Amino acid sequence: MTDQRADLRYELALANRILANENVFDAFGHVSVRHPEDPSRYLLSRSRAPQLVEPNDILEFTLDSKPVSPPSVQLYSERVIHGEIFKARPDVIAVCHHHAPAVMPFCIAGEETVPVFHLGATMGAKVPFWDSRDDFGDTNLLVVKPEEGASLARALGSNAMVLMRHHGATVVGASLRQLVFRAIYACRNAEYQMAAKALKTVSALTKGEAELAGAINLQPNASTRAWEYWVMRLEKSGGMPPR
Amino acid sequence: MTDQRADLRYELALANRILANENVFDAFGHVSVRHPEDPSRYLLSRSRAPQLVEPNDILEFTLDSKPVSPPSVQLYSERVIHGEIFKARPDVIAVCHHHAPAVMPFCIAGEETVPVFHLGATMGAKVPFWDSRDDFGDTNLLVVKPEEGASLARALGSNAMVLMRHHGATVVGASLRQLVFRAIYACRNAEYQMAAKALKTVSALTKGEAELAGAINLQPNASTRAWEYWVMRLEKSGGMPPR
Amino acid sequence: MTDQRADLRYELALANRILANENVFDAFGHVSVRHPEDPSRYLLSRSRAPQLVEPNDILEFTLDSKPVSPPSVQLYSERVIHGEIFKARPDVIAVCHHHAPAVMPFCIAGEETVPVFHLGATMGAKVPFWDSRDDFGDTNLLVVKPEEGASLARALGSNAMVLMRHHGATVVGASLRQLVFRAIYACRNAEYQMAAKALKTVSALTKGEAELAGAINLQPNASTRAWEYWVMRLEKSGGMPPR
Amino acid sequence: MTDQRADLRYELALANRILANENVFDAFGHVSVRHPEDPSRYLLSRSRAPQLVEPNDILEFTLDSKPVSPPSVQLYSERVIHGEIFKARPDVIAVCHHHAPAVMPFCIAGEETVPVFHLGATMGAKVPFWDSRDDFGDTNLLVVKPEEGASLARALGSNAMVLMRHHGATVVGASLRQLVFRAIYACRNAEYQMAAKALKTVSALTKGEAELAGAINLQPNASTRAWEYWVMRLEKSGGMPPR
Repeated sequence: MTDQRADLRYELALANRILANENVFDAFGHVSVRHPEDPSRYLLSRSRAPQLVEPNDILEFTLDSKPVSPPSVQLYSERVIHGEIFKARPDVIAVCHHHAPAVMPFCIAGEETVPVFHLGATMGAKVPFWDSRDDFGDTNLLVVKPEEGASLARALGSNAMVLMRHHGATVVGASLRQLVFRAIYACRNAEYQMAAKALKTVSALTKGEAELAGAINLQPNASTRAWEYWVMRLEKSGGMPPR
Repeated sequence: MTDQRADLRYELALANRILANENVFDAFGHVSVRHPEDPSRYLLSRSRAPQLVEPNDILEFTLDSKPVSPPSVQLYSERVIHGEIFKARPDVIAVCHHHAPAVMPFCIAGEETVPVFHLGATMGAKVPFWDSRDDFGDTNLLVVKPEEGASLARALGSNAMVLMRHHGATVVGASLRQLVFRAIYACRNAEYQMAAKALKTVSALTKGEAELAGAINLQPNASTRAWEYWVMRLEKSGGMPPR
Repeated sequence: MTDQRADLRYELALANRILANENVFDAFGHVSVRHPEDPSRYLLSRSRAPQLVEPNDILEFTLDSKPVSPPSVQLYSERVIHGEIFKARPDVIAVCHHHAPAVMPFCIAGEETVPVFHLGATMGAKVPFWDSRDDFGDTNLLVVKPEEGASLARALGSNAMVLMRHHGATVVGASLRQLVFRAIYACRNAEYQMAAKALKTVSALTKGEAELAGAINLQPNASTRAWEYWVMRLEKSGGMPPR
Repeated sequence: MTDQRADLRYELALANRILANENVFDAFGHVSVRHPEDPSRYLLSRSRAPQLVEPNDILEFTLDSKPVSPPSVQLYSERVIHGEIFKARPDVIAVCHHHAPAVMPFCIAGEETVPVFHLGATMGAKVPFWDSRDDFGDTNLLVVKPEEGASLARALGSNAMVLMRHHGATVVGASLRQLVFRAIYACRNAEYQMAAKALKTVSALTKGEAELAGAINLQPNASTRAWEYWVMRLEKSGGMPPR
């Protein structure tokens, strides 16, 4: 394995643990990154709690979500979420799926989440809502079949995030760090939207503000500053991945 | 004591501490497991805060909740909850009783908790509500007499969880790890149900979804992944039981 | 100093730190105990954040809240709360005054707190409400003058806890550990009452239930179990007082 | 560098980390202090997450927010908030800008925050509301241009704190420790105001109470006690700045 590949596996393990440490993941949730040299493949951990993922747990998958090497370990049953989005969205470099407490009330109430502050604008002006019953009726709610992943990818469309009824959210990014930034601040945005509604009323950013604030905060200097902060917090918690 | 028996006592101490570390127990609450070789007995700690329970604290009780050996320590006054449920439900291997902050608002408001996300579906489609006043009028709310435990067991019926008015909840499982999984995700479910109501409205899973999602998430691979995660969190907190 | 006196100072430092660690105190709040050999005196820390109080910080005061020895350190300006209550209530052995986040919404909204679960019943069936404007008009809200402390003590009457408008709460106990137990579970009770109201409605314990549940949970076995738990949590946080 | 200047840089790094540790800052937010010997300059960190700021990161700026020495590091883009307020308010010695979760619901709902308890009164009886659209229409919401900073300073007027629509808050103080005290207790005040509204209704302090309680709690003995507490908490978290 080249050093660059080893670094990417380490970075992906770190992203798993940061998202868990910042309360986006719990025992469940997963994050992937597109293969930097072969866009028809992606990297994703074997099935385990994200806060435990190590670089050695990272496996390669085709866009049909088949493991490139025969696996000796258990795989996430929902990996088609990643494969089908990477297929449908050549611009996407990283994908995460989660059940963060911040978004669950929206997934359960069927309420739209809208950008309510400048950092939340990085999730995009529109977050579509996917209801698995529309295409598939009653299911166990897991997104396991390729056609279920494809249906979710269609609902996502050209947006950056999609809510999943009674289930959680899926978020995409043009880089792994951008994805982590967007996933975390979309959770903060959902929390503030909910609190503003409880207090009085929700006033969203204007369309112009959402575009301008989203663009400026997706610049690398914002996500670099935040990444350094989240790594420090992970270090303090004793949660850094082994090299 | 056989190694297997020692392992079970350690596992039960671990379950006590995980449930405390995940905010299901505080200074109060208790969890038991049926004796693996003698279904007419069960194992339960002596009376102490669950986060402090050690393997040596675990005692054996008959289904009438009498200690098998004369005790030199104080016992939980509410152990009939365990004995009477083990009597009434031969399929049950583990029982826990708690006052988690997540369920208390439902116990106080008299509101039903319903499955609102796929992992919450493991608590079952129906959670009955037990009001001690129906059979006993004004009491100190503790479930101490055999007939009080039997009344609670009747209210539980064939379900997996029962809410207790002004008091808390009791949860059962077909294994100790399944019980821990169900107890924790039922708390998350209650939190999300409450938040969804504050946000807008509560939409429950359909009956079909609840059955399918409950069944898939009670498979051992889900509780194994979560158990590894909760043990890691307990280790980080410095809270592992002594061997 | 006798060993017994040294032990009591240590126990009072511990009570300070437990109440801070359990989120009853922050930088402010104070807890006192009546002198075990001379009921006309009480023990209270010099002015500092409770989580920092050491046995050496504990001073003796007369019931007029004058320091028995000329002090070389700063004193809490609100110590008349303790002195005036010890005067008015010979049955009271310990007093604490706090601004816990759990009770502040009730102090601000002017809403009554009522027992909503068995452990919360230890605060008593009735928690009166004291508004400093009734006797004193606009003040800086601190209870500093003897007549302000006496007014608060009158509002407390024969109850175990009193809410103070725009300020916080004062709680009393028949022993230091009972006081700590009552103060902490009164906060949990306030949190659950608030959550139940947000969910649907608040149903209080019946008068009979409140009396029975309050009495059983003020028995030493409950507060001993909880004390062991809170000390363990304080130890884990690295917050034990020096001997 | 004189010892006094080194001490001030250390104190400012400490203020950064305390405000982060107390949940006022996250990856974003910044705090400055006026130069003690030259009132036409101020001290502010280079651009990085506040919880990571070290004394060596502190730079000097003119009131036009130009770095006094050519910088080799990235600067906060919003430093005009500090410069323009120091220009407009000779009485101000310290400034902080934040997006604390406690204030965001007010910034989003457009709801006024009012003093609801004695320590919250330190934020002043009136907290004005600044909407960047009034002067500038749709922007990315960052306060980057001198005229944007000047507009915010005008909205602040002679008050101690200003809310910024869809963005956060800016707070000022007559000393660094006073500013930290005010910023933290204004957050607690916002939380309690929100909770009181959810419970029933918000009753603010009277004008007289707000003035008296604000004045007494801005005395150094209150902020000294709290500062010792916050430093202890920062130490426990392993977050003290290097000397």
